[in-house]
Amino acid sequence: MKALVYRGLNQIKLEDKPKPEIRDPTDAIIKIKYTTICGSDLHILQGHVPTCKEGITIGHEGVGTVDAVGDGVKAFKPGDTVLISCMSSCSSCKLCRRGMLSHCEKGGWVLGHTIDGTQAEYVRTPLADSSLHHVPEGIDEKALVMLSDIVPTGYEVGVLAGKVRPGSTVAIVGAGPVGLSALLTAKLLSPSLLIMIDKDPSRLDAAKAMGADRVIDSSKEDAEKIVMELTNGVGCDTVMEAVGIPATFELCQNLVGFGSTLANIGVHGKEATLHIEKLWGYNMAITMGFVNTTSTDTLMRMFQAGTLKLDSLITHEFNLQKDGEKAYSTFGAAAEHKALKMIMTTS
Amino acid sequence: MKALVYRGLNQIKLEDKPKPEIRDPTDAIIKIKYTTICGSDLHILQGHVPTCKEGITIGHEGVGTVDAVGDGVKAFKPGDTVLISCMSSCSSCKLCRRGMLSHCEKGGWVLGHTIDGTQAEYVRTPLADSSLHHVPEGIDEKALVMLSDIVPTGYEVGVLAGKVRPGSTVAIVGAGPVGLSALLTAKLLSPSLLIMIDKDPSRLDAAKAMGADRVIDSSKEDAEKIVMELTNGVGCDTVMEAVGIPATFELCQNLVGFGSTLANIGVHGKEATLHIEKLWGYNMAITMGFVNTTSTDTLMRMFQAGTLKLDSLITHEFNLQKDGEKAYSTFGAAAEHKALKMIMTTS
Amino acid sequence: MKALVYRGLNQIKLEDKPKPEIRDPTDAIIKIKYTTICGSDLHILQGHVPTCKEGITIGHEGVGTVDAVGDGVKAFKPGDTVLISCMSSCSSCKLCRRGMLSHCEKGGWVLGHTIDGTQAEYVRTPLADSSLHHVPEGIDEKALVMLSDIVPTGYEVGVLAGKVRPGSTVAIVGAGPVGLSALLTAKLLSPSLLIMIDKDPSRLDAAKAMGADRVIDSSKEDAEKIVMELTNGVGCDTVMEAVGIPATFELCQNLVGFGSTLANIGVHGKEATLHIEKLWGYNMAITMGFVNTTSTDTLMRMFQAGTLKLDSLITHEFNLQKDGEKAYSTFGAAAEHKALKMIMTTS
Amino acid sequence: MKALVYRGLNQIKLEDKPKPEIRDPTDAIIKIKYTTICGSDLHILQGHVPTCKEGITIGHEGVGTVDAVGDGVKAFKPGDTVLISCMSSCSSCKLCRRGMLSHCEKGGWVLGHTIDGTQAEYVRTPLADSSLHHVPEGIDEKALVMLSDIVPTGYEVGVLAGKVRPGSTVAIVGAGPVGLSALLTAKLLSPSLLIMIDKDPSRLDAAKAMGADRVIDSSKEDAEKIVMELTNGVGCDTVMEAVGIPATFELCQNLVGFGSTLANIGVHGKEATLHIEKLWGYNMAITMGFVNTTSTDTLMRMFQAGTLKLDSLITHEFNLQKDGEKAYSTFGAAAEHKALKMIMTTS
Repeated sequence: MKALVYRGLNQIKLEDKPKPEIRDPTDAIIKIKYTTICGSDLHILQGHVPTCKEGITIGHEGVGTVDAVGDGVKAFKPGDTVLISCMSSCSSCKLCRRGMLSHCEKGGWVLGHTIDGTQAEYVRTPLADSSLHHVPEGIDEKALVMLSDIVPTGYEVGVLAGKVRPGSTVAIVGAGPVGLSALLTAKLLSPSLLIMIDKDPSRLDAAKAMGADRVIDSSKEDAEKIVMELTNGVGCDTVMEAVGIPATFELCQNLVGFGSTLANIGVHGKEATLHIEKLWGYNMAITMGFVNTTSTDTLMRMFQAGTLKLDSLITHEFNLQKDGEKAYSTFGAAAEHKALKMIMTTS
Repeated sequence: MKALVYRGLNQIKLEDKPKPEIRDPTDAIIKIKYTTICGSDLHILQGHVPTCKEGITIGHEGVGTVDAVGDGVKAFKPGDTVLISCMSSCSSCKLCRRGMLSHCEKGGWVLGHTIDGTQAEYVRTPLADSSLHHVPEGIDEKALVMLSDIVPTGYEVGVLAGKVRPGSTVAIVGAGPVGLSALLTAKLLSPSLLIMIDKDPSRLDAAKAMGADRVIDSSKEDAEKIVMELTNGVGCDTVMEAVGIPATFELCQNLVGFGSTLANIGVHGKEATLHIEKLWGYNMAITMGFVNTTSTDTLMRMFQAGTLKLDSLITHEFNLQKDGEKAYSTFGAAAEHKALKMIMTTS
Repeated sequence: MKALVYRGLNQIKLEDKPKPEIRDPTDAIIKIKYTTICGSDLHILQGHVPTCKEGITIGHEGVGTVDAVGDGVKAFKPGDTVLISCMSSCSSCKLCRRGMLSHCEKGGWVLGHTIDGTQAEYVRTPLADSSLHHVPEGIDEKALVMLSDIVPTGYEVGVLAGKVRPGSTVAIVGAGPVGLSALLTAKLLSPSLLIMIDKDPSRLDAAKAMGADRVIDSSKEDAEKIVMELTNGVGCDTVMEAVGIPATFELCQNLVGFGSTLANIGVHGKEATLHIEKLWGYNMAITMGFVNTTSTDTLMRMFQAGTLKLDSLITHEFNLQKDGEKAYSTFGAAAEHKALKMIMTTS
Repeated sequence: MKALVYRGLNQIKLEDKPKPEIRDPTDAIIKIKYTTICGSDLHILQGHVPTCKEGITIGHEGVGTVDAVGDGVKAFKPGDTVLISCMSSCSSCKLCRRGMLSHCEKGGWVLGHTIDGTQAEYVRTPLADSSLHHVPEGIDEKALVMLSDIVPTGYEVGVLAGKVRPGSTVAIVGAGPVGLSALLTAKLLSPSLLIMIDKDPSRLDAAKAMGADRVIDSSKEDAEKIVMELTNGVGCDTVMEAVGIPATFELCQNLVGFGSTLANIGVHGKEATLHIEKLWGYNMAITMGFVNTTSTDTLMRMFQAGTLKLDSLITHEFNLQKDGEKAYSTFGAAAEHKALKMIMTTS
């Protein structure tokens, strides 16, 4: 079968690999229908994820059909259509029982990281009973791929941890796919003001189209000044960081108000400066964390009910077996291609 | 000035009364622009509120202009446009400090109950600093009257106490003004399914128009059966009682699922049967309470931002000084007149 | 092996049964060291649990040694000492994922109810990985049996659902084993006043010894009057019902204050009257539910640290194989024998 | 009257000042019985609080007798014994209504900061109705002074914000008066492990005596290594910073586990490094803020009930009018004098 394989710094190769097989009784083999590329996949290519070794098939998102299951799998059978969660979890270890599936003692982020992932014709998913989700019939399966990772990430790590509530004032720094996912899911809670900040005009256009009340191009406008004006000088109730660099984390600290939450979603490679000399008396919280994918079923129900729209996150579509490498080069030059999420189909 | 005065069982009279004056330094006198009739006002007429004595001017809702303030009033001055909260509160007693403004040791529901209320040309509002709200310029002041009582009631006592969340399944029993207020504010949290149950087709039509996913006429349809079908047999996450009689409270108990919340909004005059022999193991909560009006500012911000629509709650408009009694007779025969909320203006 | 078997109304028999065997890969066989009798076991004998059929070995509490495990059991191996949870749970179904292990689609309360239970020399425990708990060395294993059911029940259903906090005023109606478990675990949160109400002087003595600030014999004293005096007329923050009959549920409604929680722990066989005509405006919640045993690990850690004392709950000890039936007759006449929990050992 | 007056860098002078008078209707004049020195007072002397001008009487803690009240004061009358809250608050501004009394638009920390404070024979307390607390008869009024600031600070900013729960593992960095207050109030929630870290052996002895399970002298021992050993490598559930310098904030980041809370209590004068490159995936929160003194009544009730002990925080006693300056020099050399809190009495 064809697979997109990490071959060292900036090297992604479409290669032939043997079809995976059941190893543990809790495994399933999934025939991939749709997969996509995540910002984390680019981090791997850039050498920022040393735990990911050369030769690994990349990818942790996807919708597919169950091809085979191990003896211990009870909830799924061959032929079932499933959404693959980016987090593999046993659901019974101490951390899973505390709701931290992302830190599962037997799983966590393993797909496309420490074991072969979803950017291939087939993938072996461990701990299948608690890591796959049944897909209702008639649903838009392409858009559903957004629920493997980025939309739960924006919702859990940004919106829920950030305590967005009806009437909240919200600023999101970073209008990439995860920042936009935070926007889409923040709207579910009816903020009275939602501000999106980025330097890429096309992403800001996307944010506007998805319902941002105000977009700020921080390469041209003074984001702090505008946010303070829009909030009568008190700052936002919730500020989300969806970039992952010290400069944006610093900007976020300038947008918060008393009693606020700064929800970090970005994956950071460097330490940041915390202006605790200013913020110590702000009665605020800074939150951070992996997505636990505990909201996936709820989000799927809302997607099915039409309450949550996901298709606007998808800008490009490729055939994995033919154009998988091109999908990467397009996503890697996102600004140029006005790219958000790339769907890769298998034929 | 003209005032609508309670004159004993089923007697509401438009009478001349002297204009009220400041008595306590924390009082304000408000010239009423818009007021409305509440279900509680009918309860008074029906003799269900023995603490309300004959001769009282009825009414606890309204928008007006500050005419005069006592020495102790700091936050308001003559000329200010204000929303009157149905709850008068000192904000500093033990109960206010716990957020229970409705149980304020110095206030609570007094307007139009134990002291003269808002259905008049002028009203004296005690504890003005913490019981009035500034009205932003340019806002629809008629629709804003809905924030004096019913919309915060639906939101706080129904939606918030009922723990509505994105993706929730919700059933509301009772599509009167308060039930519809619960509907409008539940929608702010993006439930995946919202069911409205009543016996009045015109109110169910209103519910449909305000965004109910499904309406059930319980005089013709089996509400329990339909709710269970729509929820795959598991019952709703949140069920709200917005009528106030034993039969509807009992119906609500048949619609709940494991882990759910039954939020009672209705004002009950009789004890009810609790089927604890069935529900004791349901891991659920039953909540009940007065509105504390702590959400008023947030709801006003959302109304101003356009996130919350209120005008659909208003079906009729009268001039208080001319047709105040007719407003009552119309509201008293709500089904016949397809009446929700009656705005009374003063000329 | 010997087992205590339900043989119809008021019939419990010590019988010989074959040693249980692994049926499902997720099963374990446990050699019982210590078990005990629960109030629910008496309910079975009294015919109140029609889902429990004649011939079932009773019992859902115990500490023992793993004798054998199925292929799918990963967390336990023969020789391990384990605490058996009264709830069997898969940890991965929808209800388990919402923390409602008691409503697990594959488990729940099955032991000693729909399958043979723990009052025997051996028991087969399904879903072993998520229904057993490792027992640390050197711990008092007899007292630990209290963590199979009653102490988590008092803590989760009474104390946590009842929102006991430092400084709370708390009344517990019913000083049986579960009520006393609620007392012991409520003390972990440092209430400023803890009142225990019962009609059995010896149980009230036990409550006093376990730290109740005040005990009330409701057969001789006016509980409502005393509670109101002790709380300056405002009622308690948390009231727990730990009996399960209409009269005590009614008493609880007379002890609550504004903003309080009435946490029902009792198992009820009859409907109760809810005085919603009085309580509708109390801004309170009534909670009810099964124990989910999600607190078991935490409670075990506190027991190990010495923060939580459990041995005072045990009043009698019997050998199951010799005196199992006598344990039942003693527990059945609890008042006469001043009985709380009976430990049954196996030789 | 005598007062301790800030006279510039490191200058505190016992001076004669006129007795204060009512200026606003909401003022009260309190005759001080007991007051004390706070770490913040030393910050003023060290020039770290530029908003505090020379000539100000220092002090924001105390118990006294009401001498006079303004016309607008309803809850207090001359002769009442009162506890003075370090935060003055109106209870009705937007921030007060959100529970952030510390950010009250009309008050906040003003006593001994922007207006004359409590280290004098008399003090004028603004916004008296919502900033004073009635003192029950027969209570230890000296120990009660601990409730003006440090104990609510430790409890609200450390224990509550830090989400300490029964069974939690807790580390507190800094065993000064506020850190010890956090310890005393954390114990109210029955942690299973409470570790105290400092470099001063006498403060660690005090921590041990107040119930710390383990104390670590970080000048001699490897705090991170010991904490990790004691928590089986997972880190603590709650880590509190009670010093206020970058080094201790950094240490705290090494003691946290997945799903934990780092509650900052320390007042910081410099920015700190946040190791977000490590912590971004920890599913944790960092909290920070002023004390809101919303817990004062509850803590007083627990102190009165004997649930909370406070006297161990007091190590020295002085007469303000005679030895006020000596109290400062003793507190300023706390390690040498094994000083925690100094009570100053007035004769």
